[in-house]
Amino acid sequence: MSALPVALDAMGGDHAPEETVAGALLAAREGVPVVLVGDPDRLRAELRREGGELPVVPAREVIGMHDAATDVRRKRDASINVAVRLVKEGRARAAVSVGHSGATMAAALFLLGRIRGIERPAILAELPADTPAGKVHLIDAGANADVRPPHLVAFARMGAAYAERVSRVRSPRVGLLSIGEEPTKGNQLVLAARPLLEKSGLRFVGNVEGRDLMEGKADVVVTDGFTGNVVLKLAEGEARTIFRWIKAALARDLRAKLGALLVKDALKALAARMDPAEYGAMPLLGVRGAVFIGHGASDRRAVKNAILRASRLADSGLLEALGA
Amino acid sequence: MSALPVALDAMGGDHAPEETVAGALLAAREGVPVVLVGDPDRLRAELRREGGELPVVPAREVIGMHDAATDVRRKRDASINVAVRLVKEGRARAAVSVGHSGATMAAALFLLGRIRGIERPAILAELPADTPAGKVHLIDAGANADVRPPHLVAFARMGAAYAERVSRVRSPRVGLLSIGEEPTKGNQLVLAARPLLEKSGLRFVGNVEGRDLMEGKADVVVTDGFTGNVVLKLAEGEARTIFRWIKAALARDLRAKLGALLVKDALKALAARMDPAEYGAMPLLGVRGAVFIGHGASDRRAVKNAILRASRLADSGLLEALGA
Repeated sequence: MSALPVALDAMGGDHAPEETVAGALLAAREGVPVVLVGDPDRLRAELRREGGELPVVPAREVIGMHDAATDVRRKRDASINVAVRLVKEGRARAAVSVGHSGATMAAALFLLGRIRGIERPAILAELPADTPAGKVHLIDAGANADVRPPHLVAFARMGAAYAERVSRVRSPRVGLLSIGEEPTKGNQLVLAARPLLEKSGLRFVGNVEGRDLMEGKADVVVTDGFTGNVVLKLAEGEARTIFRWIKAALARDLRAKLGALLVKDALKALAARMDPAEYGAMPLLGVRGAVFIGHGASDRRAVKNAILRASRLADSGLLEALGA
Repeated sequence: MSALPVALDAMGGDHAPEETVAGALLAAREGVPVVLVGDPDRLRAELRREGGELPVVPAREVIGMHDAATDVRRKRDASINVAVRLVKEGRARAAVSVGHSGATMAAALFLLGRIRGIERPAILAELPADTPAGKVHLIDAGANADVRPPHLVAFARMGAAYAERVSRVRSPRVGLLSIGEEPTKGNQLVLAARPLLEKSGLRFVGNVEGRDLMEGKADVVVTDGFTGNVVLKLAEGEARTIFRWIKAALARDLRAKLGALLVKDALKALAARMDPAEYGAMPLLGVRGAVFIGHGASDRRAVKNAILRASRLADSGLLEALGA
C-alpha cells in the first residue's frame, strides 16, 4: 500500500470539524494515513480534544452549503480545492469530502480534469442487494441530471470497471434501469441507449426494473443522474422508514416488546447493512484522480468508511484501468 | 351507491380466471356488484368451482402478455375492450383489469377518450407514507415515459383532486419529485415545471426528494411516468427484500427464533401495510371513465381490493370534478 495519505476536506459537512477529525483518526488507527485540510487552529484544537495527531494542510476558506458549486472557482483556497489539489500534485492519493457535493464535483472537474473519452464524470453508489457481492452498483447516482444515450454507455463502462477492480466482481452483469424488461419499454433515453449497450462488449443483461434493483438481477445498474439520485435517496429513505415502523410495531404491546428484546441483535445487524454510513461515501468516476463525496450528515463512522474506501479505490488500479 | 356493477376483465392477469373470479366473488360479498367479462364457458365453470354466482358478459378474445398494447384496435372483442365498452355505454361504473396494462390504457384512451384539457392520462399509485392519510399519491406511476412540463401540472391537478375526493385529504400538499430541495436542483423537465406549479393555484410545497417520499412531506408527488414507475417498483421491491431479509435474520439463531414467535403478529401487520395487494390496483386518471389497472400477479385479495377501490372512485364524484 502506498504511503501517500488520503486528503480529507475536514471543514465540509454538517458535523465538521468534530466528526470529520474523529473519523480521520479512526481511519488512521486502521492503518490509512490521512491529512486534514482546513483551518489549522480549529483542526489542531479538535485533534487535541480527541487526543490524536494528524498532519494538517492549511486552507483559509470554506465552501458553505449556501454557496454555489461554481464558487470553487472564486474561493481558490477553499478546503475542498486544497484537498483536490493535493491529489493533483501527487501529495495525496485520494480526496474525500462530506461537504458541498456540487462543489466537490466542480473542484474535481476543474482541478483534475476528465479522463480521456469520458465526457461526463458520474457518481457511483453502492446499495445492499442480493448479488454475490451483497451489493449493486448504481451509476449515475446524481452527477448529471440530463444525459444523452452514449453517456449511459460510458457510465456502464466505469461502473463495470469499478465492480471488477474495487468490489472484486468477476465479469459484472450490467443492467439498464427501465420500466419493463422488454427492449421496447422505457423513455427515449433508455430506448436509444439499449442498442448501444448491447454492442458495447460489456456483459449486458438487459433492462432491470426498480423491483429488480435489490433483488440482484445485475451487479451494475446504469441510469441518468436524475433517476439515479431519486432511486438512491428513496432506497435509503425507505429503509429508514421501514425500520422506524418496525420499531413502533415492536413496541405496540407487551408480547411484541418482549420479543423485541430477543430479536434486537438480529435486526440491528440488518439495519447496519442498510445504513448508508456503512458505505461512507460515493466515488466520482471519470476524473483523473480518486475523489469521494459523502453525505453532509456523515458521522465519524461514515467519515472513516469514506476514507477507507477512497484508499482502497486508489490502490485498486481502477483509475489506471480507466486511463486516468 | 349506484346499482351499476364494476366490470372486471376476468381473462387478464397471471392467475386468470381463477383469482379474478374468486376476487370478484369476494367483492360482491362486500356489497359491490360485479360483472365478469370474458369467455363465458370458462368463467361459468370457475364460478361453479367457487360456488358463486355473477353475471357474465361474453368476450371472445383476450389480449395476452405477448400482444402489443395497440392490439386492442385489432382484437375489438377482447375482454378488456368489452369491459371498457360497458363503462362507455353506461352499463358499468368502472372497469378493472389486472392483465396487460398497456392494452388497458390503450382501450381506455381509444374507447373512452380523454377528459377535456388533459393531454396525457396518468396512473396514480398510492404508497404507504407518514402523512395524515397514511399514504402518498404518486402520479404519474407509468403511463407516460416522456412528458413536457405542462403535463406535470395536469398530473398535479388530477393527483390533488384524487387525494381530496377519494382519499379525503383536505387541501393536499403537492410536491415535485427532484434531486434537491432548492428550486435550482433537478433535470430540465423539473426545472421548467417548477414555476408552472408555483403559479398553478395548487398547494405546492416545492421539491421533494426520494428520501421524503415515504416520510410524508407531501400528500401528492408529481413526476414523469418513467421516474414514477421506477420509484413505484423500487418502493415495492425494497419492502419485499427487506421483509425477506428480516425473515432470514429472525431465523439465524435460537434466541432470534424465539423472539420471532413473539413479534410475528406485529411484523405481519406492518408487512400487510407495505403489501401492494392491499391497494389492489391503480386508477388511470384523465380518461372519461373509471379505469383501474392492477398487477399481473394479483391474487384474489388484490382483485377484490381493486374492485372495491374502483367502486369508491366511481362514487366519489372525482370524474365529474375533473370534467369527465
